[in-house]
Amino acid sequence: MKESDRYARGWAKLKEIDGAAGERVIDFLNDIAPDLGRYIVEFPFGDVYSRPGLDLKSREMVTVSALTALGNAAPQLKVHIHGALNVGCSRREIVEIIIQMAVYAGFPAALNGISVAKDVFAERDQQGLS
Amino acid sequence: MKESDRYARGWAKLKEIDGAAGERVIDFLNDIAPDLGRYIVEFPFGDVYSRPGLDLKSREMVTVSALTALGNAAPQLKVHIHGALNVGCSRREIVEIIIQMAVYAGFPAALNGISVAKDVFAERDQQGLS
Amino acid sequence: MKESDRYARGWAKLKEIDGAAGERVIDFLNDIAPDLGRYIVEFPFGDVYSRPGLDLKSREMVTVSALTALGNAAPQLKVHIHGALNVGCSRREIVEIIIQMAVYAGFPAALNGISVAKDVFAERDQQGLS
Amino acid sequence: MKESDRYARGWAKLKEIDGAAGERVIDFLNDIAPDLGRYIVEFPFGDVYSRPGLDLKSREMVTVSALTALGNAAPQLKVHIHGALNVGCSRREIVEIIIQMAVYAGFPAALNGISVAKDVFAERDQQGLS
Amino acid sequence: MKESDRYARGWAKLKEIDGAAGERVIDFLNDIAPDLGRYIVEFPFGDVYSRPGLDLKSREMVTVSALTALGNAAPQLKVHIHGALNVGCSRREIVEIIIQMAVYAGFPAALNGISVAKDVFAERDQQGLS
Amino acid sequence: MKESDRYARGWAKLKEIDGAAGERVIDFLNDIAPDLGRYIVEFPFGDVYSRPGLDLKSREMVTVSALTALGNAAPQLKVHIHGALNVGCSRREIVEIIIQMAVYAGFPAALNGISVAKDVFAERDQQGLS
Repeated sequence: MKESDRYARGWAKLKEIDGAAGERVIDFLNDIAPDLGRYIVEFPFGDVYSRPGLDLKSREMVTVSALTALGNAAPQLKVHIHGALNVGCSRREIVEIIIQMAVYAGFPAALNGISVAKDVFAERDQQGLS
Repeated sequence: MKESDRYARGWAKLKEIDGAAGERVIDFLNDIAPDLGRYIVEFPFGDVYSRPGLDLKSREMVTVSALTALGNAAPQLKVHIHGALNVGCSRREIVEIIIQMAVYAGFPAALNGISVAKDVFAERDQQGLS
Repeated sequence: MKESDRYARGWAKLKEIDGAAGERVIDFLNDIAPDLGRYIVEFPFGDVYSRPGLDLKSREMVTVSALTALGNAAPQLKVHIHGALNVGCSRREIVEIIIQMAVYAGFPAALNGISVAKDVFAERDQQGLS
Repeated sequence: MKESDRYARGWAKLKEIDGAAGERVIDFLNDIAPDLGRYIVEFPFGDVYSRPGLDLKSREMVTVSALTALGNAAPQLKVHIHGALNVGCSRREIVEIIIQMAVYAGFPAALNGISVAKDVFAERDQQGLS
Repeated sequence: MKESDRYARGWAKLKEIDGAAGERVIDFLNDIAPDLGRYIVEFPFGDVYSRPGLDLKSREMVTVSALTALGNAAPQLKVHIHGALNVGCSRREIVEIIIQMAVYAGFPAALNGISVAKDVFAERDQQGLS
Repeated sequence: MKESDRYARGWAKLKEIDGAAGERVIDFLNDIAPDLGRYIVEFPFGDVYSRPGLDLKSREMVTVSALTALGNAAPQLKVHIHGALNVGCSRREIVEIIIQMAVYAGFPAALNGISVAKDVFAERDQQGLS
């Protein structure tokens, strides 16, 4: 496989999952750390999210739980709640995942996760998205 | 609902997911903090894992990713990899989830998660479990 | 004990400790995750903070130190600095706890904790609270 | 104040709180990083634990909660559970503090904290300590 | 050595590394926790950054990586990216360090670190600093 | 560039930095998650450590500080202290980096880092390495 294939596959996957929000992350990096943007396209999206063995909806669900539990990545949690909804998660499932994190990372992590979800749901209401 | 119903429901759910390993956690707490054992039965299992809105396999998958990402809860990760396999996850799916955590929590977290999974898989091989 | 007793006890404890700020947290959850709000009333407040064996002032002090050390839960730290002051801590004791966290979680955690405390003290000055 | 006073005050405080276990930490550092040992005597013990404004029992309690919540400092949690008991905490209070951390840092943190406390209590039983 | 020497040495080091931004941190603490400000001058700057055995540029580089990896100390990361640039790091080196943290702490930590660096570089452009 | 070049470059870099210890990590993954091993060769080593803009010694130093600060990756910290020494760091510099982490991540993180360094230094003494 050529490197260029890996980038192309990652870019398609990024757009499938995150849409315009994903592109904005890459754009944000362009003037300061374009290679970090390239790595994000190539490794998480071109390599990991493109793997068989776990469906895309499950991949987004486990990312939402991990970012909620870590508790220090609100901007990325926002992108991935959008992503999870884009690939077939319901809002109900998002809320269930975040509630469950109270068990493993404590109530503050769950509360802050719900706060991010609330913002995402409001944005999607305005855009007419489920 | 009576409190006793909540405990009974949690105990059944704990045994469904974690089997004897779950019971050993509760036993371990019996002489020093029995109420913590009771809370574990009642809140995570009686309340959260018993909720509708997210299937049990998904609940275990998001717990495996969160504990891998947090990286400071190896004993609990072990119990929940067993639990995930007990409720329908494949070993392949466990490995995929842990690999994906390299993206969100770094390669050390993924490597240490794989190390726990390797121990769990070896234990299950000895017990003739999938 | 009936479930409803547990909720009532938790609600009373929540109001004793956190006053209106605690109620606002529950309200915030009402439209998106009301069960998380119910769990917060029932488990942390109805179960844990209602336990004998440790006085309420000490319970709030150990929460302030833990949230300062974790460093990723500023909104909850704010609520619990208010809570600690509401149940008998002095501002001096709050500051001492946060300074001590420099030893265990590093100076950035302590600095960010002091920043939250400064906001809380200013709010209380405006409200004429100690 | 002379530097030597600061060290002497810290050493006395270290021995008051942690006894032989504290000395062993300093000894452990002697051949590889003696200045880190000196800093531990001078800053945490000579400066922070020697401050007025918060009693020593409370200082140890907030350290136990913070180390339980952080979840990556088991050796230090062990030393400070001993320390807390040495300066007037009861075993019951230690258990209460750790249980409460389930709320703020999740059940795995609380379980791993209880596991450390169980070891400490067993050591003290053997030594005839409360 | 007298205590006053330690403070003087720390203050000089703080100004050498962080300039006015460092002084603002100490000022911020003056009305609420002046002793924390004094400890910051004395211990990190008077003791640690004044040590031989590692050059100042390297000391700032390892601080930038650690704060990026921890991911919960954005204000301090900002101060230390300024500090690193003040003592001889290039912007390119800062970006390289932060990109590398994607490996050890995950892509969200690296992205949030780059976001802080972008703000710092913009501030320095306005001030005509390299 | 072809993918195979990326792997080859990463493998050479891995061996340059970590020697046999790096190979053992990849071997360990072979039966359970060989693709994670491949990613480690390709992304951290083939992409990141192979970048210009920051010398290899500095790259290892910032990894040692980050892993010390995170505090939940002792096996990886061990590999990278070896790596840092292999590419030109002195033991003194390693100790300085770890001591400095007391400032940013607290004394427990520094103590646990020193404990890992002590093991590494003893291993290298036995092997006649600097």
